[in-house]
Amino acid sequence: MDRKSGRLSWDGLRGRVQDAGAPPEAVDRLVELEGRRKFFGQVGRGGATLAMLGFFGAGTEAAMRGLFGRGLIPVAWAQEVTDDQARQALQETGKEGITVHNERPLNAEFGAHELADEITPINRHFIRNNGLIPQRAFQQDLQGWALEIDGEVNQPLKLTMEQIRNMPARTIQASLECGGNGRSLFDPPVRGNQWRQGAIGCSEWTGVSLGDVLREAGLRDSAVYTGHYGEDPPLAGDEVPISRGVPIDKAMEEHTLLAYQMNGEDLPAVHGFPLRIVVPGWVGSCSQKWLTRIWVRDQEHDGPKMLGYSYRMPAYPVAPGEDVPEEDMEVAKDWPIKSMITGPAEGSEHAAGAVTVTGHAWAGEHEVERVEVSIDFGNTWTEAELRDPANKYAWQQFEAEVELPGRGYYEIWARAFDDEGNGQPFRQPWNPRGYMGNVVHRVPVRVTA
Amino acid sequence: MDRKSGRLSWDGLRGRVQDAGAPPEAVDRLVELEGRRKFFGQVGRGGATLAMLGFFGAGTEAAMRGLFGRGLIPVAWAQEVTDDQARQALQETGKEGITVHNERPLNAEFGAHELADEITPINRHFIRNNGLIPQRAFQQDLQGWALEIDGEVNQPLKLTMEQIRNMPARTIQASLECGGNGRSLFDPPVRGNQWRQGAIGCSEWTGVSLGDVLREAGLRDSAVYTGHYGEDPPLAGDEVPISRGVPIDKAMEEHTLLAYQMNGEDLPAVHGFPLRIVVPGWVGSCSQKWLTRIWVRDQEHDGPKMLGYSYRMPAYPVAPGEDVPEEDMEVAKDWPIKSMITGPAEGSEHAAGAVTVTGHAWAGEHEVERVEVSIDFGNTWTEAELRDPANKYAWQQFEAEVELPGRGYYEIWARAFDDEGNGQPFRQPWNPRGYMGNVVHRVPVRVTA
Repeated sequence: MDRKSGRLSWDGLRGRVQDAGAPPEAVDRLVELEGRRKFFGQVGRGGATLAMLGFFGAGTEAAMRGLFGRGLIPVAWAQEVTDDQARQALQETGKEGITVHNERPLNAEFGAHELADEITPINRHFIRNNGLIPQRAFQQDLQGWALEIDGEVNQPLKLTMEQIRNMPARTIQASLECGGNGRSLFDPPVRGNQWRQGAIGCSEWTGVSLGDVLREAGLRDSAVYTGHYGEDPPLAGDEVPISRGVPIDKAMEEHTLLAYQMNGEDLPAVHGFPLRIVVPGWVGSCSQKWLTRIWVRDQEHDGPKMLGYSYRMPAYPVAPGEDVPEEDMEVAKDWPIKSMITGPAEGSEHAAGAVTVTGHAWAGEHEVERVEVSIDFGNTWTEAELRDPANKYAWQQFEAEVELPGRGYYEIWARAFDDEGNGQPFRQPWNPRGYMGNVVHRVPVRVTA
Repeated sequence: MDRKSGRLSWDGLRGRVQDAGAPPEAVDRLVELEGRRKFFGQVGRGGATLAMLGFFGAGTEAAMRGLFGRGLIPVAWAQEVTDDQARQALQETGKEGITVHNERPLNAEFGAHELADEITPINRHFIRNNGLIPQRAFQQDLQGWALEIDGEVNQPLKLTMEQIRNMPARTIQASLECGGNGRSLFDPPVRGNQWRQGAIGCSEWTGVSLGDVLREAGLRDSAVYTGHYGEDPPLAGDEVPISRGVPIDKAMEEHTLLAYQMNGEDLPAVHGFPLRIVVPGWVGSCSQKWLTRIWVRDQEHDGPKMLGYSYRMPAYPVAPGEDVPEEDMEVAKDWPIKSMITGPAEGSEHAAGAVTVTGHAWAGEHEVERVEVSIDFGNTWTEAELRDPANKYAWQQFEAEVELPGRGYYEIWARAFDDEGNGQPFRQPWNPRGYMGNVVHRVPVRVTA
C-alpha cells in the first residue's frame, strides 16, 4: 500500500482480497480488471476505499466478504460501469473516483476525506436514485414540463419553469443526506445500499420557497401533508416511482425550496433537472427530484416508500436484529446530531505530534452546540473550533488540533452535540432498515516510528 | 423464552441454534442432550447464557457460530462434564451453574449478574488453570510439601506450612482477574478462552505478606524479579507448567500475599491448595497456585508464559488484527480501570421507571475516582454512588438509579474513571492475545409495554 495516498497497488489489492477469503470469481474478476486497468494508468480512489476498510486489520475479512457479497463496486470498477444511463450521469457531473453501489438505480458516494469542501461541488455530491433518470433531464428539455399543485388548495396551480423562475429566488446551503447514510455500520447488517459516510452533501441550492407557492395556491384548513411526484421512470413495469412528502409545517418552512439550480448551475440531470424539492435537515428521500406535482394531502401521504418499512423508524428503541411490527413504524423525519471527519483521511500516516482534524457537523432541526475530538477511544476530548452555519440547515465546519503521542495505531473520533444536549451515540442504535445512522465517526490513522 | 428468568426452553434453544445456522452436528448434540436433560429437570443457567447472547438479536448468529465453533459449553452441558478432575473440582467448590470453557485445563466463569457479592464466595469465583490440579490439592496432603525461596537472596529458605502459618497473618480482599477476561469482546476475535465478563473475583485472602518472607531470606541488591513455581502437572509430557513472576517492588508490596485461606477456609484444591500467591490488581497469571518455589531473579523472569505473546501486550497501540513483532511485546502488569454491572441482569425485563444499577469497579494500581451509568448509548450519564474499598486492591461497589423511559430496548452502560482521569474506552483497543479488555460494560435490558 502506498501509505501516503492511502491507495493500494493492484498487487496489494489482489493479495488483500485473496487473504480476505474472497470467492475465486471475485479474485478472477479483479485480475481481469487489473489487466484492463493497466490501460487506464494508476489505481484510483477505489483502492483507497478498500485500503480504508483494510486498515481495520483482520476485521477486513468481514468487510471484504461483505464488499464482494453485496456487490459494492470500488472505483477501480467505476470505469467498468456498464449501464449507459449511469455512465452518462457520472460523466456529465464529472464524478471521478466515486464509489458506485448500484448502477440501476444509480447509487454512489465519495469517501469522507473527499468531502472537505464547505460547499459540496457537484462533482463530489452523492447520488441516490430509486428509479431511472428521465430522458428529459439528460436532454435539458422543458417541452411540456409543468409543476402542478393540487389537492387541499383553494387554487390548483400549473406552473411553467418560466413562472417559477420569475418568483422571488432564494439561495441557501442545505445538507442533504440519504436516510441510509452510515448503514454499513449497522450491526447486525441490514439490507440496502451499504453506504459508508459519504451519502451526504451540502451544496448551494437556488429556487423558490415552497411556502410561497403553496400560499399562492391557498392552503385549505384540511391541508396537513405534501405528496411529491416526479417523472423518474420506475425500474420495472410493476414498480411505481418513489413518492414521499412532508408535514405541511415543514413544507411551509422558508428553507424548504423548489430548487432549479445547484451551486449556481441549472440542476444536472442526475440531481433532478429541471426542478426538485430541497427539504434541508430531513431524510433525503423527502427531497424529490424531477418534480412535476405536489399533491397537498388531508392526511399523512401514503405514496410509494411512505409505508411499511421504507424510510420508517421504530416508535421505540429496538434490539439489534429485532422484528418490529409494521404498525410500530413511523415516518423518518429530521436527522439527529451528526458529524463527519474529512481530514485526516482514513488510513493516512503521520509523524508523531500535532495533527489538524477537520470536518463538518449538522443537526437536523437543531443547532450544533459543540464538537469534540478524541484520539484515545473516548477517554479524553478536545473541543473543536466550530464555525457558524452559512444559514440554518447548512453544515458547520469544525477544526481541532490533536497530539498523536507516538508510534502506533490511533482512531480519531469526532462527536457533536446539539443545542438540546444530544450527542452522537458511541454505538449505533439499530433499526430494521438501517436509517438515520449517526454513530461517532471513527477515522483510523497510523503514526510511523 | 421465559422472559422473566431470561431462560430459554429447550425448544427455544434448539430453534435458536438452528436459526443461527449452527452445524448439523451441533443441533444433533443438542437434541441428544435434550433427551438426557429431561431427566434432570428444568433448563439451567446455560440457557440464560444463550439467552443473553441472543438478546442482542440477529447478531446472535455470529455469537452462536462462535459459541459452537469455540466449544463454549453452557451449563446445560455442565452436568455433561466428562473429565473426572474437572467434575471433582466443580463439585468440591459447589460451582453450580458455572459456564465451562474447557475441561482440560479447567476454565470456567459465571455471568456478571451472578457476581454481585462484595466478597466473591468460593462457589462463584472463576477458575483459570493452565495445567492440571495436583493430586495433593484434592487430598489436602501436606506430606513432603515445602516452599523454597532461593536465587538472589542471602539466606535461601525452605518453609513448611506450619512455619508459614506461624508468621504474622494478613487478610485482604483482592480482585483477581484473568488477563483474558472480556476476550470475547475483541474484534477481530483472538484465540484463547472466550471469556465474557466473569473471569474476575474479589474474595478474601489470608496469608503472609510475600515481602515479610523475602525480607527474612534477605534480598540481594541483584534481586529484580520473582519467578513462581507450582506443582500443577502439565497437560502433556512436552508441556511445562506455567511459571510467571513480578518485579521485586510489587513482590515486596504489603498486599502481595502468600495465601493459604480463601474466605476463611483453607484453599480449595482448584484455587491453589495449600498455598498460592495473590498479586492483587495485576494480571491474574501472576497469582500462581499450588506454589512450591519462589526463585528470586536478577532479571525479568523468563519462565513459561512469560515470553512470546503469552500475557504480553504491544508496547504501542496496534491496529485491530495487526501482526506485532515479538520484540515489541511487553509483559502485562496491572489492570486498567474497569467496571462491571452485576444488576440488572443481561436480558432482564423491567417496567418503565426507576431501575437500580449495581456493580463493582476496580483500577489496578490506581484508585477508582467515579463511576457513571448511561442508558442512552453514552449520551447522558448519571454519577453512581461509590463505596470505599475494603482495602487497597479490593473492588468497590457502586449503585445508581436510572429511569427507563418507556417500552423498548435499552443498554445499561457503566463507565469507571481512575484517579488519573483514565476512563474505560468505548471501543476495545486490540492486542494480539486479547488481554486486559476493559471496554465499557453494556447490559441489554428490555422495558415491556
